[in-house]
Amino acid sequence: MKLENIRIVLVNTSHPGNIGGVARAMKNMGLSDLSLVAPKIFPSGDADARAAGAADILRSASVVASLQEAIADAHLIVGASARGRNIPWPVMDPHELAGVASSLRDTQKMAIVFGREDRGLTNDELQLCHHHVHIPSVEGFSSLNLAAAVQVIAYELRMAQLKEVDARTQAPQWGTDWDVELSQHKELELLFEHLEKVLVEVDFLDPQSPRHLMPRLRRLFQRAVPDKVEVNILRGMLSHIQKKNDLK
Amino acid sequence: MKLENIRIVLVNTSHPGNIGGVARAMKNMGLSDLSLVAPKIFPSGDADARAAGAADILRSASVVASLQEAIADAHLIVGASARGRNIPWPVMDPHELAGVASSLRDTQKMAIVFGREDRGLTNDELQLCHHHVHIPSVEGFSSLNLAAAVQVIAYELRMAQLKEVDARTQAPQWGTDWDVELSQHKELELLFEHLEKVLVEVDFLDPQSPRHLMPRLRRLFQRAVPDKVEVNILRGMLSHIQKKNDLK
Repeated sequence: MKLENIRIVLVNTSHPGNIGGVARAMKNMGLSDLSLVAPKIFPSGDADARAAGAADILRSASVVASLQEAIADAHLIVGASARGRNIPWPVMDPHELAGVASSLRDTQKMAIVFGREDRGLTNDELQLCHHHVHIPSVEGFSSLNLAAAVQVIAYELRMAQLKEVDARTQAPQWGTDWDVELSQHKELELLFEHLEKVLVEVDFLDPQSPRHLMPRLRRLFQRAVPDKVEVNILRGMLSHIQKKNDLK
Repeated sequence: MKLENIRIVLVNTSHPGNIGGVARAMKNMGLSDLSLVAPKIFPSGDADARAAGAADILRSASVVASLQEAIADAHLIVGASARGRNIPWPVMDPHELAGVASSLRDTQKMAIVFGREDRGLTNDELQLCHHHVHIPSVEGFSSLNLAAAVQVIAYELRMAQLKEVDARTQAPQWGTDWDVELSQHKELELLFEHLEKVLVEVDFLDPQSPRHLMPRLRRLFQRAVPDKVEVNILRGMLSHIQKKNDLK
């Protein structure tokens, strides 16, 4: 596992001190790739203070306007989530997440996405993710401080790196020896756009009343973590459906 | 394992904000017994602020003058330590520590001792401990924030406790709390037949030269282990594609 292939993404962070705390937690555990989506205040003296010796992580952090930008080149996206969303998504604990991270190849990038201090990630943001990770906190007092949550995840990633041999035994389906490169987020997004367009064209999806159709299809496909050939097949299929419609 | 038998002991803490952060980390993970050995500033508004909803942990914390007092009734004492002390002591990582905690009887009390923000525990203090615990941080940037360190230990304790509780259920990640029943093999087969038919109708699949199209689509969908609603959505989509074709 290459820890430099793992990106920590913070969405709309309110308190710059927390960004500093995250940077410190990352550096303690050997992570270095930090992406900030529309932080309220950054850069900031509070961030620098809490970062202690991890100012380099803050300096090299990318600041972007949207979550989509932050994850565009990632192959596997995992969103930090409390339990109990409308549509259940595959949920791992931090230890399982680290096992999955261990199974990634050196060319594969993972993004782990953390939401706002007070409200976490929105449903739309969570649905951009292949998997969710839940830190098993106590019911009734479940919300961890942002830097503490990143610390736990980063700790498990480092433990897994130190125990590579252990973790390799539970390589999931998309791990070792896959024949095709995994698709990136932006390729999946184009697929979902295309799919939605076709579903409207064949009168299956009513834009006035979309129900949970697209979230459910997203969940299904993202769960499988499609590779590039699979995405090409699906895109080709959609194009042929459209061509057939036009011809008649 | 009874989490109420585990005491977190902080020695000579300088920043009250860190005491608050520790209280929050403890409560998130189900710990409640906090002992403060000669804190520089306590109680404090900073501690309350960082504790968020964990003020009850601060209120019930015991404040004592010496480490010996804080650990007097403990059966097993573990000191948080950086590596490389003069006399090597038995060192565990947090995961191993949680394993040890699991093995304690309900009448046995464990204390986990954390030192000062800048210098940790003295050699004398470390030698009061049966074992040491080391969080495997990166060399050259090894010192975790105090609350972050407690968060990692508390997380491992809670993980160990939860494992005791659901040692029996090893359901797949999307299993237990899924909202819909998983589809059965025969339903998936009908889906694949339907899909293949439509792919031929829209001239995407050439029955004379099918290549690996269907196996690849099979692999993709089966990897996701679709539920019944998802299969119904896909079947509905295929039917609409066919209806659209027929109407024109």
